[in-house]
Amino acid sequence: MGRRYATVSFLTDYGVDDEFVGVVKSVIRDLAPHAAVIDLTHGVRPFDVRAGSLALARSIAYVASGVVLAVVDPGVGTHRRAVAIEVADGEGVLVGPDNGLLAPAVALAGGAGRAVELTNPDFHLPAVGATFAGRDVFAPVAAHLCNGVDLAGLGDPIEPELLTPGVIPLPQADEHRVIAQILWVDHFGNAQLNVGPTDLAETFGERLDLRFSEPTDPSGGMSRSATRATSFAELAAGVVGLVVDSAGLFAVAMDQRSAAEELGLVAGDQVTLTPAADDGDADPGSTSQPVELRRPG
Amino acid sequence: MGRRYATVSFLTDYGVDDEFVGVVKSVIRDLAPHAAVIDLTHGVRPFDVRAGSLALARSIAYVASGVVLAVVDPGVGTHRRAVAIEVADGEGVLVGPDNGLLAPAVALAGGAGRAVELTNPDFHLPAVGATFAGRDVFAPVAAHLCNGVDLAGLGDPIEPELLTPGVIPLPQADEHRVIAQILWVDHFGNAQLNVGPTDLAETFGERLDLRFSEPTDPSGGMSRSATRATSFAELAAGVVGLVVDSAGLFAVAMDQRSAAEELGLVAGDQVTLTPAADDGDADPGSTSQPVELRRPG
Amino acid sequence: MGRRYATVSFLTDYGVDDEFVGVVKSVIRDLAPHAAVIDLTHGVRPFDVRAGSLALARSIAYVASGVVLAVVDPGVGTHRRAVAIEVADGEGVLVGPDNGLLAPAVALAGGAGRAVELTNPDFHLPAVGATFAGRDVFAPVAAHLCNGVDLAGLGDPIEPELLTPGVIPLPQADEHRVIAQILWVDHFGNAQLNVGPTDLAETFGERLDLRFSEPTDPSGGMSRSATRATSFAELAAGVVGLVVDSAGLFAVAMDQRSAAEELGLVAGDQVTLTPAADDGDADPGSTSQPVELRRPG
Repeated sequence: MGRRYATVSFLTDYGVDDEFVGVVKSVIRDLAPHAAVIDLTHGVRPFDVRAGSLALARSIAYVASGVVLAVVDPGVGTHRRAVAIEVADGEGVLVGPDNGLLAPAVALAGGAGRAVELTNPDFHLPAVGATFAGRDVFAPVAAHLCNGVDLAGLGDPIEPELLTPGVIPLPQADEHRVIAQILWVDHFGNAQLNVGPTDLAETFGERLDLRFSEPTDPSGGMSRSATRATSFAELAAGVVGLVVDSAGLFAVAMDQRSAAEELGLVAGDQVTLTPAADDGDADPGSTSQPVELRRPG
Repeated sequence: MGRRYATVSFLTDYGVDDEFVGVVKSVIRDLAPHAAVIDLTHGVRPFDVRAGSLALARSIAYVASGVVLAVVDPGVGTHRRAVAIEVADGEGVLVGPDNGLLAPAVALAGGAGRAVELTNPDFHLPAVGATFAGRDVFAPVAAHLCNGVDLAGLGDPIEPELLTPGVIPLPQADEHRVIAQILWVDHFGNAQLNVGPTDLAETFGERLDLRFSEPTDPSGGMSRSATRATSFAELAAGVVGLVVDSAGLFAVAMDQRSAAEELGLVAGDQVTLTPAADDGDADPGSTSQPVELRRPG
Repeated sequence: MGRRYATVSFLTDYGVDDEFVGVVKSVIRDLAPHAAVIDLTHGVRPFDVRAGSLALARSIAYVASGVVLAVVDPGVGTHRRAVAIEVADGEGVLVGPDNGLLAPAVALAGGAGRAVELTNPDFHLPAVGATFAGRDVFAPVAAHLCNGVDLAGLGDPIEPELLTPGVIPLPQADEHRVIAQILWVDHFGNAQLNVGPTDLAETFGERLDLRFSEPTDPSGGMSRSATRATSFAELAAGVVGLVVDSAGLFAVAMDQRSAAEELGLVAGDQVTLTPAADDGDADPGSTSQPVELRRPG
């Protein structure tokens, strides 16, 4: 027998309008009644493995020791592997599909220890169809882990370096500009970038120009000037801010309004940051307009 | 005293934007602090007793032994009965309104044992208005059941055959076609039918034609060809599939897209399945058009 | 050491699509694994302190003894105070921002006992940014309270009368009319008013006229007649009712339909109640039209 666990931290793209989440919890309750299930979120956009991996990565430093059960699994029922991965010398075990969902969290937790493919059907439920691995494979495996079943019993070992990696976009930065990407738009409409204060050169002051563009049209888009701030409430009405968020990254934000809605931003959009062209006299709330020079008459 | 229970499985149409669910859980926490509440779902469409009964039926085989508390209750405050029904020799007790919500789950759990109407106010909370039986009647009853209060103490016995039955539509099937109904559209846009693989005659091959129509206009609607599949991911882009879902029923589905949105489907719609007119050369992604034969000149 | 608590009742405007709620619960699970967290709701509209304070006030009589953690906090990261307030001789402690969110619940629980500002960083987490006090300040404080840390250790004492008060609008009533306000529109579309049966003079019968107007245009708006009822289901199709709701207040309601959607109502709208102009022969479902008298000749 292995170590026993008392907590399952649970993240999916199941939503909460159906009974999927409840059925998974019921399976765990039935098999491991001592385990508490903590919902991280079930609001990951359907099939969005990258968004799920980022939500898990943002959470991982805070989850209680135990099992992490994460399911965003568009390949369910195919030959994608179902896996369990130990981290932090067995302080935690991440369980889910091997499609990159778990990889950033595993890396943040110090990297993979032992890993197995969940090939032993003794620890699964008999499945009617092949579409609900959360209920039939991942939930019972999580419960059995809580009960002290050792990872090695759950299936065939995998070399950790053969796990599917996650893909997190890196910013491109030099002294004059940073090309960033929106990682996440949160419930309040704050748009988190993949850059933080330490990614900006000293040439960047307290005010910056932001150019927003869709990934398919990097030269298009609109510009806004933005002010650095440490809280939302210090931004004046209508002003766009760059606020250091709870992950230590810049979020494009406004006070008590959704910056994403106001500016039409979605995850994946590109944001180019440059030092403010004219830090002195610009109206901080105004959109900076491209200037059209008239040909002399 | 009766048997004690440690789990309350909880389903409603309350949504999660108000505090209704939290207040019910607070009442249970206060009266029976040892009991864990497992949310099955609170996303049943408001007043939709049938949808609630189906969600409960899909869940019941997986819920932990204990109390099942289900509230979709448009008749609250009227003379509809509030009931508790034992199943599986007391392994479980279902608590809720007697409006058909509980009936399919009771049947799947082996049928009703003892049943009572919740007429004993000693086990209710004093109620300010008559609109929140979840808080004032059902929650305290569920908690007292967890504490070992016997069913017989909760009110007047009811003959199980006098409980309001549930209504689940049966398909009409022969060798040439099956007239099915959409039972449920899930979070991913899969549309579950009330037919499974064993309901199809041998004359049906791997490809079928589906005609979708609203219940009020059974001769109208559009047609699509569909391919049988065991997973979503084996469907090519744009192809409509019939995937055996986690309840063993066919779901009209597409890979990483909402079939319901793509095809305009909602619960209650009629779907007529026939063997594919021309299994050989049709483009599996195309809509099959009705042919208009011209009269010769 | 102070009293230990076993329950944290939790309300926010975080929504459930992000991992905010899950991270707060993870912090509590890690620090105080014996504590159960009961979600009251996380569906308060973003930044809407008043709506949060009302949801908390509606819940407070039902929450289990223990810690109440409430976060609707547009001023996070500024000099607004973070506080903990004892109520009911220490039966409960409310934790959150001092912006009026907690005030109505504190009043309903009998008023504030000891109160402190959460200035002692020993009971906080090290914070990356200043935007997520729920995770970095309020959650660890709630957990430490559960573990028996006395309120006095959490920071500087505050005089209870210096806490920010809540603002709940009072109706204006006389024998002829009551000017009320919509406090809350619930998931089912019932619009709760700030008046109940005891606020109506004897001159009001079973039928009333309601005039709905936006706060910015009190003389505009439309009128409907309404019938008093004790349950939704006793209202005929299309009839608007005044139903005494679970808080003992009138809710503008319809049977199995959203009155708020039908009538275009939102929280904050003004509703003027008058005795029905002609109680005898009016069609109860019809809109009462203002009469335009033509000038003769």
